[in-house]
Amino acid sequence: MDKIYAVILAGGSGTRFWPLSRETWPKQMLQIVGEDTLLRQSVRRLNGFIPLDRVLIVTTEKLGQDIKIHLNVFGKNANQIKVIKEPCGRNTAPAIGLASLYVKKIDPEALVLIMPSDHLIKKVHEFENDVRKAVEGAEKGYLVTFGIQPNKPETGYGYMKVQKESVPGLTLRKLHKFVEKPDRETAKTYLKEGNYFWNSGIFLWKVSKIMGEIERYMPDMHRGLERIEESLGTDKERETIEAVYSEMDSQSIDYGVLEKSYDVLTLPASFDWSDVGNWPALDDVLEHDAHGNIVRGNAIGLDNHNSILFGSNRLLATIGLKDMVVVDTPDATFISPKERTQEVKKVVEELKRNGKEEHSVHRTVERPWGSYTVLEKGDRYKIKRIVVKPHEKLSLQVHRHRSEHWVVISGTAKITRNGEVYYVHPNESTYIPVSTRHRLENPGKVPLQIIEVQNGDYVEEDDIERFEDEYGR
Amino acid sequence: MDKIYAVILAGGSGTRFWPLSRETWPKQMLQIVGEDTLLRQSVRRLNGFIPLDRVLIVTTEKLGQDIKIHLNVFGKNANQIKVIKEPCGRNTAPAIGLASLYVKKIDPEALVLIMPSDHLIKKVHEFENDVRKAVEGAEKGYLVTFGIQPNKPETGYGYMKVQKESVPGLTLRKLHKFVEKPDRETAKTYLKEGNYFWNSGIFLWKVSKIMGEIERYMPDMHRGLERIEESLGTDKERETIEAVYSEMDSQSIDYGVLEKSYDVLTLPASFDWSDVGNWPALDDVLEHDAHGNIVRGNAIGLDNHNSILFGSNRLLATIGLKDMVVVDTPDATFISPKERTQEVKKVVEELKRNGKEEHSVHRTVERPWGSYTVLEKGDRYKIKRIVVKPHEKLSLQVHRHRSEHWVVISGTAKITRNGEVYYVHPNESTYIPVSTRHRLENPGKVPLQIIEVQNGDYVEEDDIERFEDEYGR
Repeated sequence: MDKIYAVILAGGSGTRFWPLSRETWPKQMLQIVGEDTLLRQSVRRLNGFIPLDRVLIVTTEKLGQDIKIHLNVFGKNANQIKVIKEPCGRNTAPAIGLASLYVKKIDPEALVLIMPSDHLIKKVHEFENDVRKAVEGAEKGYLVTFGIQPNKPETGYGYMKVQKESVPGLTLRKLHKFVEKPDRETAKTYLKEGNYFWNSGIFLWKVSKIMGEIERYMPDMHRGLERIEESLGTDKERETIEAVYSEMDSQSIDYGVLEKSYDVLTLPASFDWSDVGNWPALDDVLEHDAHGNIVRGNAIGLDNHNSILFGSNRLLATIGLKDMVVVDTPDATFISPKERTQEVKKVVEELKRNGKEEHSVHRTVERPWGSYTVLEKGDRYKIKRIVVKPHEKLSLQVHRHRSEHWVVISGTAKITRNGEVYYVHPNESTYIPVSTRHRLENPGKVPLQIIEVQNGDYVEEDDIERFEDEYGR
Repeated sequence: MDKIYAVILAGGSGTRFWPLSRETWPKQMLQIVGEDTLLRQSVRRLNGFIPLDRVLIVTTEKLGQDIKIHLNVFGKNANQIKVIKEPCGRNTAPAIGLASLYVKKIDPEALVLIMPSDHLIKKVHEFENDVRKAVEGAEKGYLVTFGIQPNKPETGYGYMKVQKESVPGLTLRKLHKFVEKPDRETAKTYLKEGNYFWNSGIFLWKVSKIMGEIERYMPDMHRGLERIEESLGTDKERETIEAVYSEMDSQSIDYGVLEKSYDVLTLPASFDWSDVGNWPALDDVLEHDAHGNIVRGNAIGLDNHNSILFGSNRLLATIGLKDMVVVDTPDATFISPKERTQEVKKVVEELKRNGKEEHSVHRTVERPWGSYTVLEKGDRYKIKRIVVKPHEKLSLQVHRHRSEHWVVISGTAKITRNGEVYYVHPNESTYIPVSTRHRLENPGKVPLQIIEVQNGDYVEEDDIERFEDEYGR
């Protein structure tokens, strides 16, 4: 087991949970089911059998920094996790290929466990046991897929048809074929026949084996990966990745390799699994009240039935809703019948087309040093509440179009302003004129909260010049 | 026509339009239909035939000040309107009786036109013409009610059954009886028979006649009114009104007088009319899109039908709604099928029971000097945007539990702080320590906008001691 590396695929910028998810804050970073976000749950799931220094996360350039901040909860060891940034999403095959190069460089004989970052598995012990069983097959040179025994005629998942008996000496079965999402009648047949499994997107194999199969079945992509491989660790690495990705096709590993390879086995998994693919999927994994509703946040309801009501701090009052989904966030509310929530994509596209911010950012934005919340934006002004974590500091910076008034609400602020250093305490304020080099820092042991009032002819986030930054920005 | 006074009844604190209406901001102060709020439309409707100095508005103690501010749009003549404050709502009979005393004192032979403040009439010329016709009857000593010819079998209104022919020499008809809200079948019969009219709540009569009829049919109430009449203009006026009201029953003028009197005539009105009694009533008076929706504010929708979607500045995204009502405000969202919106009362009651502010106040609160908007409230702090109108000033005041940081966004602030007077300009700030006598004023010609950050162990509105106030608070 000390040869296994985990590759977590976290590039998804799914819009299906909008407005809770945003382009800059996708589903894997949401805490919609369970005690923590899906991504963090995915990392914790490995606890005990794959240490953090053998965990790689593949994500996009855009999400890279936020994902790193997101992993800070794992403490000092968080930076042992390798975060690989793709220039753009190209489906699973390139992501897996790219991550495999990094693993191969460390240990060409390593095993690699591939996992999505945004699925739910509650039974972590069963998961670990299943990985151990899969190791037997992977070590023998097989590509092992994890199949989930269906408990209902689900039409939203892809299926894998497998042999009814195990391969001699293993608990794994030969894979016959992948099957697209079926209609309900077909799904019922699959359920009855018993040798159809849901494709969980979890795989285990030797890095050498998958690279060999990619070479055989996806030769173009493999040539690109070879170019990247040569550049690894050199100062050409980033630009080579960008060049190769700009020419690479979007392909999934399922159809690029697994459909074609002769060496694929399936492990009938003993753990529970859900891809939490849309709002109605929550009905399978969250608790309901006596009327079948899932209710969160500041919600007051009267005679609602089988509805999903996700409130926020704002008050959400509903009467007589049936089979509806309502999602309330500080800046946007979404309402739809359950059966039509997938159309939220069209809403997000329209927002994007019209240049509306609500498709991409939340009112509260996480930063390596803490977070800020936009309380109001108006003509020539913007008001934010800023929270700086203990011992963290913002970059030394300058704004060319705005000045900033800061009032401290709690904690102590250490301010650097044009070289001068001073402290500001609760119920005190300070002022940063335009074009003044400044830095905000929390030297204390409790969070620092300040209210910032920006004044200027341009109050957007990109009016910032950074001189020194703790976080390499 | 120069003997007519108008009495506008504006005591309603209806919850039926929550969350757009609040206890402190009822329906008559909302701009839901037409160019202005229903109350202001009611005042404007009199333009040209009843001048402002013959307009009286009866409202509650609670709403009195806000109503006065609300009427400021009528400029310098606004204070010619007499605002009469009832200690508490006691239905229409006491309100009409009380207002009649004030009219009678000026002119015992005056005619009084009674009107609700929260109904909609678009055809103001027809309205004026109808009043002129009604005058003929009122001057002959009749109590004239305005009946609306039904155009559908409405079950939400009370009806008046009238004689089929006019009284000789008048365009008015004898009233037979008032009828409670009918069921649909009965309403259909009324529509067919043609001599049933909706009761608009609009009446015209001599003040002497109505006082006489009140004396005859509501002798208890009349005795109370006589006590008040004696106190009018003396320093006992307020306390007498309070004493009488505390013992007075709630009674409507319809059932207290009009049902019993032998001298009631009905004018078949030629103007349009709606009582705008609930959300679905808007379907009769507002424009629809091609799919039968009424849409307002920052709303984005996909395939919605026959729904009422009232957005605010926040984004409201809806898919596939049918016959629904959605009302979004900065601090609360309400969602219900059209046919159940009347149950919103239960929601408001529950909020009240739980001590939630959302039942009573909006995030933006109007004041005589301007307005403030609560941007955020947290532990030991509150953030407001304050707008002071040109040449207006807040009271000279002290807070015992909070200090205030002010940052000017636009306009110029004149500050009085412990006797010192100084000016603060855009992008400048100042500080008011706790227990410091201070005053904020806009000496300029454009609105003054400031951001206020309050700090303290208690940041509620009632921590205020006023020393001088322009508005008699």
